[in-house]
Amino acid sequence: MCMNLAVALVHYPVYNKNREIVTTAVTNLDIHDIARTARTYGLQRYYIVTPSPEQQAMVNRITTHWDTGWGGGYNPDRKAALSLIKVLPTVADAVKDFQQKFCKPVEIIATGAKPKDDAVSFRTLRQKLQDQDKPYLLILGTGWGLADQLFEKAELTLAPVNGAGDYNHLPVRAAFAIMMDRLLGDFRS
Amino acid sequence: MCMNLAVALVHYPVYNKNREIVTTAVTNLDIHDIARTARTYGLQRYYIVTPSPEQQAMVNRITTHWDTGWGGGYNPDRKAALSLIKVLPTVADAVKDFQQKFCKPVEIIATGAKPKDDAVSFRTLRQKLQDQDKPYLLILGTGWGLADQLFEKAELTLAPVNGAGDYNHLPVRAAFAIMMDRLLGDFRS
Repeated sequence: MCMNLAVALVHYPVYNKNREIVTTAVTNLDIHDIARTARTYGLQRYYIVTPSPEQQAMVNRITTHWDTGWGGGYNPDRKAALSLIKVLPTVADAVKDFQQKFCKPVEIIATGAKPKDDAVSFRTLRQKLQDQDKPYLLILGTGWGLADQLFEKAELTLAPVNGAGDYNHLPVRAAFAIMMDRLLGDFRS
Repeated sequence: MCMNLAVALVHYPVYNKNREIVTTAVTNLDIHDIARTARTYGLQRYYIVTPSPEQQAMVNRITTHWDTGWGGGYNPDRKAALSLIKVLPTVADAVKDFQQKFCKPVEIIATGAKPKDDAVSFRTLRQKLQDQDKPYLLILGTGWGLADQLFEKAELTLAPVNGAGDYNHLPVRAAFAIMMDRLLGDFRS
């Protein structure tokens, strides 16, 4: 289990199609899919970042249903996944929360589909994660991706996941699954 | 682009929670997410296998909307992904369709979360796929996985995707993304 890695799915600040900074809506799908993948790869925490109190309440309603509500008894595997979730208003809050848990400074790893000059490779980050004393927060953007200000705040930027050609429109859920496998997966199989 | 690989998402025959053979419902999410990942990794075709005429009509309504309807102009990337989709009643129909296109016998690769003694590794299958003359159809189960009869029909069974511990409840969409990356991904990054 990788205890020094957490993920944050960011709904603000992100770009829309016209490169305006917006708050996107939290989707039920992102809640469940990313939680199941995060749990499968042993992550410590899955932060859902949204400044909207209504959206925060919606996420808490869903996780409570699967935790203490009817869903927990019906599907305990789902409960184990959703118990990783914590909803917070900003990325800074997620860093602070993870830092308190870990008692060490957390480094932010920004991700996106566009190549950046100073990006670290998956291989390099996989090696860094072996040092269990150092906590990292991987941040994923919704909509058309993380705002530049988050790349500026991040200590590291991860190389994009490339497919087999020029077309690169992976859903964030699929990109996250591939990242986890490259960083933490068991390649013996 | 990998022209010798296609994927089929199977809604019958698959198991439910009580290991009964059922027909699952096609979800909008599986249509979109798997199409986008398949397109990103250069697959030839994405078959949606369901014997239900109502479900077949539903899929065709969605793909038509994004192809010739309003959606095609609004989001051409989505159109490129969904154009890979073909709905057919059985896995045998999908094999036959891909065979006609390729004019060579198609081998079926079955997938699932449980380990099997005769499973091929990702590395072995990655090498096999380099032989562009040989077509393969990767079949994915919905619900609680592909019925045993499909494993018996398949020429190959692929090793399961393992996470970092005992918990393994990846969504089929996430497992497919990881498979594509392991089989066709560009690991130089």
